[in-house]
Amino acid sequence: MKLKAVIRDIYSGGPLIISLSTATAHKLDLFPGDRVKVSAHGKYVIAVSDISEELRKDEIGILAEVNKCLNLNDGELVSIEPTETPQSLTYIRKKLDNKKLTKDEIFSIVDDIVDNVLTEAEVAYLISAAYINEFSMEETESLVRAMALSGEILRWKDKRILDIHCIGGVPGNRTTPIVVPIIAAAGVIIPKTSSRAITSPSGTADTMEVLTNVEIKDSEQVKRVVNRISACLLWGGALNIAPADDKIIRIEKPLSLDPTAMLLSSIMAKKYAVGSTHVLIDIPLGYYAKVESEARYKELKTKFEDLGRRLHMTVKVIKTDAKGPIGKGIGPALEARDVMWILEADERGPEDLKDKSLMLAGTLLEMAQVAEKGKGIKTAKEILHSGKALRKMKQIIEAQGGDSSITSKDIEVGEFSYDFRAEKSGKVTYFRNHGLSISRLAGAPKDKKAGIYLHKKLGEHVEEGEILFTVYSESKRKLDEAVEYAIDNFPIIIK
Amino acid sequence: MKLKAVIRDIYSGGPLIISLSTATAHKLDLFPGDRVKVSAHGKYVIAVSDISEELRKDEIGILAEVNKCLNLNDGELVSIEPTETPQSLTYIRKKLDNKKLTKDEIFSIVDDIVDNVLTEAEVAYLISAAYINEFSMEETESLVRAMALSGEILRWKDKRILDIHCIGGVPGNRTTPIVVPIIAAAGVIIPKTSSRAITSPSGTADTMEVLTNVEIKDSEQVKRVVNRISACLLWGGALNIAPADDKIIRIEKPLSLDPTAMLLSSIMAKKYAVGSTHVLIDIPLGYYAKVESEARYKELKTKFEDLGRRLHMTVKVIKTDAKGPIGKGIGPALEARDVMWILEADERGPEDLKDKSLMLAGTLLEMAQVAEKGKGIKTAKEILHSGKALRKMKQIIEAQGGDSSITSKDIEVGEFSYDFRAEKSGKVTYFRNHGLSISRLAGAPKDKKAGIYLHKKLGEHVEEGEILFTVYSESKRKLDEAVEYAIDNFPIIIK
Repeated sequence: MKLKAVIRDIYSGGPLIISLSTATAHKLDLFPGDRVKVSAHGKYVIAVSDISEELRKDEIGILAEVNKCLNLNDGELVSIEPTETPQSLTYIRKKLDNKKLTKDEIFSIVDDIVDNVLTEAEVAYLISAAYINEFSMEETESLVRAMALSGEILRWKDKRILDIHCIGGVPGNRTTPIVVPIIAAAGVIIPKTSSRAITSPSGTADTMEVLTNVEIKDSEQVKRVVNRISACLLWGGALNIAPADDKIIRIEKPLSLDPTAMLLSSIMAKKYAVGSTHVLIDIPLGYYAKVESEARYKELKTKFEDLGRRLHMTVKVIKTDAKGPIGKGIGPALEARDVMWILEADERGPEDLKDKSLMLAGTLLEMAQVAEKGKGIKTAKEILHSGKALRKMKQIIEAQGGDSSITSKDIEVGEFSYDFRAEKSGKVTYFRNHGLSISRLAGAPKDKKAGIYLHKKLGEHVEEGEILFTVYSESKRKLDEAVEYAIDNFPIIIK
Repeated sequence: MKLKAVIRDIYSGGPLIISLSTATAHKLDLFPGDRVKVSAHGKYVIAVSDISEELRKDEIGILAEVNKCLNLNDGELVSIEPTETPQSLTYIRKKLDNKKLTKDEIFSIVDDIVDNVLTEAEVAYLISAAYINEFSMEETESLVRAMALSGEILRWKDKRILDIHCIGGVPGNRTTPIVVPIIAAAGVIIPKTSSRAITSPSGTADTMEVLTNVEIKDSEQVKRVVNRISACLLWGGALNIAPADDKIIRIEKPLSLDPTAMLLSSIMAKKYAVGSTHVLIDIPLGYYAKVESEARYKELKTKFEDLGRRLHMTVKVIKTDAKGPIGKGIGPALEARDVMWILEADERGPEDLKDKSLMLAGTLLEMAQVAEKGKGIKTAKEILHSGKALRKMKQIIEAQGGDSSITSKDIEVGEFSYDFRAEKSGKVTYFRNHGLSISRLAGAPKDKKAGIYLHKKLGEHVEEGEILFTVYSESKRKLDEAVEYAIDNFPIIIK
C-alpha cells in the first residue's frame, strides 16, 4: 500500500514508530504495536505502528527515528506492508530455552537490534536469556564480533594499538585523559573512544568535552588525527562504534541487569572495533563499585583474558581499590580541572588520581614493551613531569577542533555554590555514593559546570568548621535541590 | 512543573506515552523513554515521555491511552515530575535471580502492569523470569488472585456457578456457545466470558458477536442478565475481567512464550473473577494444539486441580483429541452457523462439534450434580433435542441486546468465495494449521463473514472433483490473497 508521508518531529527515544489512521490499520489487518515494513527510495525499515486519528486514510505519520533512516519529505509516497516475524526472535527463544546459539544466529540477533527490527520487549527477552542462561565463551566471542562488525571498524598499520578501560561505578575516576596523553607521548598509538554518562554525573566523553570537541563522525578523519599525533579522546557514539551496545544498555537500565556476556562484549566489542592489540582493564573492587567480590573479579579476569586470546588481543586485567572517590572533582568541568592540574604539574592535582593514572600508564607501557618490566611507572612519571603529556594533550585538543591554549585556569565551574563544613573534628571515614546523586541533582552531566568538589578525602583529618565539600551548579534551583538532598543523604561521616 | 495539555488523538496500542519539547525535557533532566508522573484532577498516571518538537515549552502532549485515565481537555494544566523507579522492578529482578516472591510482591507487580507503570520491556523481564525460573504453586496462586482482583469481580448467591474453558489452538473448536445454553437450560448458572481472537481467525467472543452484542461494561447489568436467564456469553475485555492478562499475552506473542504460571493464571484468574465454583477445562492434545505431549497435559492437569483446591473451586481437566479441526466452519460467521445448525437440530450441524459439546456439557452437568454420574451426556442430549438449548440461546441473544428471531438462515457468509476441489480420489488424511492463516488472510476475524468451510473432514473419502473446502471473503483482493496462499500452503493431503 502506498501512503503519503507526514513528517512528525517526534522522538520516541529509540523504537522506530510510524502512525496510521484506524481505517488504514484496519485495511492492513494491523493492531497498534504490530510491526510493518516501511520503504521508500530503495531503503526500508521495520517499524512499529501506532494509531493516530489525526491522520487521513492515505497518510502515514513518520516519527523522527524512522526518518533518520528514510530521509523523507512531507507528502512523499511511502510503501507499507505487514511484515513477518523476524527470524532472530526464534534464536532469542532458543536461548531462553537454554540452548547454545551459533555464530550466525548471534549475528542475526545483533543486526536486528542495530536495525531497530526488534522491539524493546524483545531485546529484554534476550537480556533475560543471557542473564539466566549464561552465554558460553564461544557465544560471547560471537557476540563481541557481531557487536563490533555491526558498526564502524578501524584498522591500523602499527602492530601495537593500546587501549584502556576502567569498569565504572567509582566517582571521579577520570584516569583515561591522563593515561592517553602519556602513552601517545611515548610514541605508541592509543585511539581512545569513551562513553557519555548514563546514570553517573560524567563519562570520560563528557569530561573531555569541557576541553575540546569529542564528536567526529568520519572514521577517515579519526585515522588522520591518530596517525599524526598517536591518540584521540573521542565519544564512541558519534563514530558509531559497536552501536548495538547503547541500545542494550538502555534496556538493561531499569532492572540494573548486566549479564556477564553483555558486560564483556560491551567492552571488548569496542576494543575490537577500534583495532586495539593491547588492552588494559581496570576493575575497581569494593562495596560501591560495580564489582563487589573477589570471586566476581576473578571470574571477569579469566573471561576477559580468554576473550583476548580468542580475538588475538593481549588483555591484562588488574584490580584497584574502590573504597572512595578518586580525585577531588565529580562532574565534567570539575574532573577536567583535576586532569589539567595533574598534566600541568599544579600542586592542586589530586595525588590519588595522579598515582593511579601513572600506575595504569606504566602498566600499558610495559605491555607494549616500551618500558622494561618494572620500569613502566618510572617512564610514565618522566613523561608526565617533562611536560610531554601536557603537550600531547594540547595536540589532542587542537586536532579534535578545540583551542590548544586552554589551561586549568580557563575551566569554569558552576556560578552558584554551597560549602558543606565539618560539624566536628575527626577523620573522614565514609564516603557514600550519594555524592553521585548530589552531582546529578546539581545538573551534571548536562550542566558541565555542575558537580561536587571534595576538599577532604577518605582518611584525612578535618577540623570542625573546615569545608568538607562544595556543591556547584549553574542553576540556583538545582543547587537548592542538590543541597537539600545532601543534607538528607550526607555522604561523609566523621569519626 | 505545570504544563498545558495538548490532547493528541494518537494510540500507542498499550504503553502510556506523553510528549515534551526538548527544552522541557532538558529542564526535568529527562531523556526520551524516561518515566514521569503526570497528574491532574487528583488522579495520576506513570507515563513514558517522548520528545516532540511540535510542542512549545509550556505544553505537554497527552496521547490517547493517557487521556483515558486523566480525562483532560485541551489547555488544562497538568503537573509533571520525574518519578522514581517502581518498587515492582526489584521484585521482577528477584524472580530473574530465581528467588521466591511473596504475595505482596506479586500483587505489586500485577498492579503496576494494570496501571501501565511498567514498560513492555519490563513486563518481558517478568515473562522471561516466569518462563525460565518457574513460579511455585504458591506463587501461581498469588498471581491468580492478583490478576483477578486487579479487575472486576462477580459474586453470586447460588452455590453452583459453572464455567468451561477450552485451551486454544484447534481450528473451529467452538463448543462453548453450545455448552452454555445446555447448562443454563438445565437451570444451572454459567456466566461465561470469552476472549476475542489474537492470532486465530476467531475467538468465542468474535463468533458470538455474529449473533448478538457481546460488550457489556456494567457488571450490575451482567448480574441482572445472569440472575434472570442463568447465562451470558460475553467478551471479558469489555467487563474488565483480569485486565493484566491481555497485556501479558500481548508481550508474550512475538516469541510465542507462554510460561506455565501465565497459562494457568490467565485462565484461572478469569474463573475466579467471575465467581465460578465448578470449572471444566478441556485440553486438546495433539501436534497442532497448544499442548503437544501427554506429559505436558498431565503436568497442567495436576496444576489446574491444585489451583482449584487453593481457590476453593472444583476443577476437572480432560483431554480431547486435536488431530484436526472441530466443526466445519472456521471464521466468526461460519462458526456461528455451525453452532446454530446444531442448536436447531439441522442435519448440516457438524457431528464432531455436536458430540464434543454434548460430552463437555454432560461432564459439567455431572460435576454440578444435576445429572447422575454416567448420565450427563444423556441429559445434555435431551436438553439439546428438546429445543430447550435453542430457546436458551435465543434468551441470551435477546438479553445481551440482539434479535432473538435470528436463525442459521440469517447468518451471511462472504460475498466472494472460491472452491478448492480434490485433484484425485482418496482419503483426507492431513489437515495442516495453514487453514488458520488462510482464514486470517481472507479477513477473519475483523471481517466476520470471512473464513473457510470444510466440506470434507479428516478421514472422509473424497472423489476427484468434489469440493474439499471453500474460502469466503468480503473483499475480492483478500480472497485472492487467501487463495494464492492456500495454493502454496495446501492444508489437505489426499492419500
